[in-house]
Amino acid sequence: METPRTDRPMNVSRYLVTRLSDAGIGHAFGVPGDYTLDFLDHLLDSPIRWVGTCNELNAGYAADGYARLRGAGLAVVTYAVGGFSVLNAVAGAYAENVPLLVVSGAPSGRVRAAGALVHHLVGDFLLQADVFRRFTAATAFLSDAATAPAEIDRVLSAALAARLPGYIEIPMDLARTPCAAPGPLPSFVPPASDPAALAEAVAEAVERIDRAKSPVVLVGVEALRFGLAPAVLALVERIELPFATTTSSKAALPELHPQYVGLYQGVLSRPEVRRQVEESDCVLALGVKMTDWDTGMFTMGIDPSRMIRAGVRDVAIRSHTYPAVNLGDLVGALSAALTPRRYEESHPRQAVRPPAPVVPCAEAPLTAESFFRRLATFLDDSMTVVSDVSDVLCGASDLHVQEADRFLCQAYYCSIGWSVPAALGAALARPERRPVVLVGDGAFQMTAQEVSTLMREKTRAIVFVLDNDGYLIERLLHDDAAYNDVQRWRYAALPAVFGDGAVSFRVTTEGELEAALDAARVETEKVVFVHLALSGREPSAGLARLCAAYREKLAGRRG
Amino acid sequence: METPRTDRPMNVSRYLVTRLSDAGIGHAFGVPGDYTLDFLDHLLDSPIRWVGTCNELNAGYAADGYARLRGAGLAVVTYAVGGFSVLNAVAGAYAENVPLLVVSGAPSGRVRAAGALVHHLVGDFLLQADVFRRFTAATAFLSDAATAPAEIDRVLSAALAARLPGYIEIPMDLARTPCAAPGPLPSFVPPASDPAALAEAVAEAVERIDRAKSPVVLVGVEALRFGLAPAVLALVERIELPFATTTSSKAALPELHPQYVGLYQGVLSRPEVRRQVEESDCVLALGVKMTDWDTGMFTMGIDPSRMIRAGVRDVAIRSHTYPAVNLGDLVGALSAALTPRRYEESHPRQAVRPPAPVVPCAEAPLTAESFFRRLATFLDDSMTVVSDVSDVLCGASDLHVQEADRFLCQAYYCSIGWSVPAALGAALARPERRPVVLVGDGAFQMTAQEVSTLMREKTRAIVFVLDNDGYLIERLLHDDAAYNDVQRWRYAALPAVFGDGAVSFRVTTEGELEAALDAARVETEKVVFVHLALSGREPSAGLARLCAAYREKLAGRRG
Repeated sequence: METPRTDRPMNVSRYLVTRLSDAGIGHAFGVPGDYTLDFLDHLLDSPIRWVGTCNELNAGYAADGYARLRGAGLAVVTYAVGGFSVLNAVAGAYAENVPLLVVSGAPSGRVRAAGALVHHLVGDFLLQADVFRRFTAATAFLSDAATAPAEIDRVLSAALAARLPGYIEIPMDLARTPCAAPGPLPSFVPPASDPAALAEAVAEAVERIDRAKSPVVLVGVEALRFGLAPAVLALVERIELPFATTTSSKAALPELHPQYVGLYQGVLSRPEVRRQVEESDCVLALGVKMTDWDTGMFTMGIDPSRMIRAGVRDVAIRSHTYPAVNLGDLVGALSAALTPRRYEESHPRQAVRPPAPVVPCAEAPLTAESFFRRLATFLDDSMTVVSDVSDVLCGASDLHVQEADRFLCQAYYCSIGWSVPAALGAALARPERRPVVLVGDGAFQMTAQEVSTLMREKTRAIVFVLDNDGYLIERLLHDDAAYNDVQRWRYAALPAVFGDGAVSFRVTTEGELEAALDAARVETEKVVFVHLALSGREPSAGLARLCAAYREKLAGRRG
Repeated sequence: METPRTDRPMNVSRYLVTRLSDAGIGHAFGVPGDYTLDFLDHLLDSPIRWVGTCNELNAGYAADGYARLRGAGLAVVTYAVGGFSVLNAVAGAYAENVPLLVVSGAPSGRVRAAGALVHHLVGDFLLQADVFRRFTAATAFLSDAATAPAEIDRVLSAALAARLPGYIEIPMDLARTPCAAPGPLPSFVPPASDPAALAEAVAEAVERIDRAKSPVVLVGVEALRFGLAPAVLALVERIELPFATTTSSKAALPELHPQYVGLYQGVLSRPEVRRQVEESDCVLALGVKMTDWDTGMFTMGIDPSRMIRAGVRDVAIRSHTYPAVNLGDLVGALSAALTPRRYEESHPRQAVRPPAPVVPCAEAPLTAESFFRRLATFLDDSMTVVSDVSDVLCGASDLHVQEADRFLCQAYYCSIGWSVPAALGAALARPERRPVVLVGDGAFQMTAQEVSTLMREKTRAIVFVLDNDGYLIERLLHDDAAYNDVQRWRYAALPAVFGDGAVSFRVTTEGELEAALDAARVETEKVVFVHLALSGREPSAGLARLCAAYREKLAGRRG
């Protein structure tokens, strides 16, 4: 990375830009506004590249997608109109442990002191920072250049250590105020484990796992977000333990690994996965969050007394908890202390096989099911799947992905419309990878304009819009009511509105899908946009199962 | 309005729907989500019509536009992903005194008690209500059917009385829970004035105004929002006082009225308006908010000692304030107590004349200036101008509009992208009126998908996209930097993506504009979309003046 120039006098904006670079930020997503322009001038004059998005929510989603692949993402917005517009993306990042950093401009201290009613002001001058405090690991309102460097370091350290959003508000008078030069890099790592607690927890865990006949490791989303997937892989390979993942940790470990059991999600799991996990006499759950999607609508059938539940910073066994034990330390210690087994003796066959090629039936109307079956063999290692939620996530769950960085989804916060802007972030975070967006029609309409930025930034994204005529999950879940209808767009005509950097298809049959996939393979420098005009409102098998489980749950709660 | 059916058992959803109807709500804008569906089922079965929008922010903007014309607007969203997405629209309504009501679904009490990690949850279960508390007159989290009716009444009364947003969160288990039937309508009016303070304030004001040689009434945004424009008109007509308005109260009183001085905005005013207001020996300011836009970037040159400043609930004269004096009571009392004058004796000529027809020069490249000159004679009484901010608002300020309900803008909060969805709300609030949207290209890209709903709802809107190649105001204000560039869309191709209900034009010359306007006059049942591909980046005269004033101010603050 280019070192920031040292021949310019240091000021608060340059300090902030330097520290953002230190945090791994190479791109800034956002919309300019007058309160932010002084900061943006410094950002343009730095190694960080500016990527203008159509609106601020989309900037936030893009920074979220970027952060998932690069360890941190950045959205730059203007005061209030920008800040409150990006908030939902920050809320999602907070729920999902994504270090999305937000820098917002603000009126100057003089305006604040005068209480002047300047444009965008709502409530009081500190309202925006107050709100963001609820959605971030740390928040700084920079009001003094003397303390600004320490405040900036404090926010970035806290956000990166906790893998949570951070918020920095830089009033326009501070943006050009001189300040101290950056000192040594602040620590971006969490505090150390308590050695006694760690030793005790490891000893108890080792005793239980070594004694177990059929232990299984369940790898959760926190292992993924805290960058521990390689360490967990080393553990399961050294000890030769079978492992499963959840939807939100999908592909944290390779899904064609011979020890991979499959995706565990309660009653929604494949039967053999469910059996192996639920009948295990010791489930080592590493960073599993018990969310509704990951637990198959809370149908996880694992006896808690047989679980070792390791969170980011504690370990629970039976009815007691060891605090101050870091997940990374635990994984490392277990790897060293557990007795290796011979996985192949007890599990002679590979649990998961690569998908078999399908023979398309040219005239057959395309369904969600046939699309996902075909997609499974279209995907390759050069692509990153960016999946929206609802039916597309159900379908995408069944894909076999070998690396966490090749599958992004928001399986807990579930904000529809996230995928198209998140793919923008993913494309710029990893330009060598081609994003493959899976999005339903209702979700697509939320953030459709960001296809424009996918094209402007020459991302080569492949966008599949699964058009099943509205909010299908709600029709199935609840009622086929009018509120689930959406306007039926001519989706394939949309990219041409935005410019020339795309090829576009409307697909109704398996044969037409082949033509679109062939083109996608050839058009490696363009955005490829595919409107899948699905036949009827048939859900994928996964969605049908999910809705059944949800309805059952709901009936139980109401009864 | 249809009376809600009485043959169904009352429950919390039916109660809420009934009270929303009582508040004048005829349409609900929103996006469905599972936490909200039980409530929506009741809403579909009521006189309130559901209008699905592409995303929640746009639903909020639409409800804002609706509320400006109907006294209240409604957005219905799902938990968290919907709530935090609509927040920026609510912030704008809070800043601008617009009674935007938000109803949000939420997880059930059982889920809350269990602390279950259900989808969309972020932070804690009460976070959303906590955040909305900061942006509303009142907030209710319904957790008990016994108190829900009183809570609903409390929120609606407070919001409508204060002309501010209100927020009601209805967990899904409450949506079908039986509750008491609605009692008598709650009071939607503010508390009464203190009679002694009112009498004293009126006496002092009358003394000062009657004694003044050249009094002027400055009508502000609060007079407009609190429905006092008719009373103020009666006052100025009875006493024959000259009056001016501000941008945010534009057209509160008729702009071709013989006593109308013009739009006052400090140094940005026309010279004769500035002279008459600033040289007045008594300015009666009724509900004027001293915002940057309304004061011409704080260049209002009125001697405070010559002002009588009446707010919604107080009156300030020289250095003292009378609290608990309602603006409406003050206006009524002044109307009765002031000594009439003969306006025409001192002001023989009409200050403002209707615009003269312009003769288009067919081949002349279209500029912002020539567009607004032509628009002035195109508009008629059947249209409502819905103006975004920046250059379009500068241009639109010069239009002559005879009625407040025919001019909508967000001149204080200034959230770009507001106009297209707000026009949806305006169209449904007043179906007999045709919305005329004025929006710049950068602002348009923010919320462009809502043109789809303008078409779906058969609104007959006329949408003018003034394409001046990016964020022009920031180029002029600050720097012609790369962050002000936007992707240049083929805007006129967009409506055809959404369906068949529109005609569309790309206009580069005055002659092509004529053709588009002719078509708009003929196509009275369709959305008419006009891409104004302006020649270069020439600002309107108003924007050039505004930027100069802003830069001067900024230099002063930095110096």
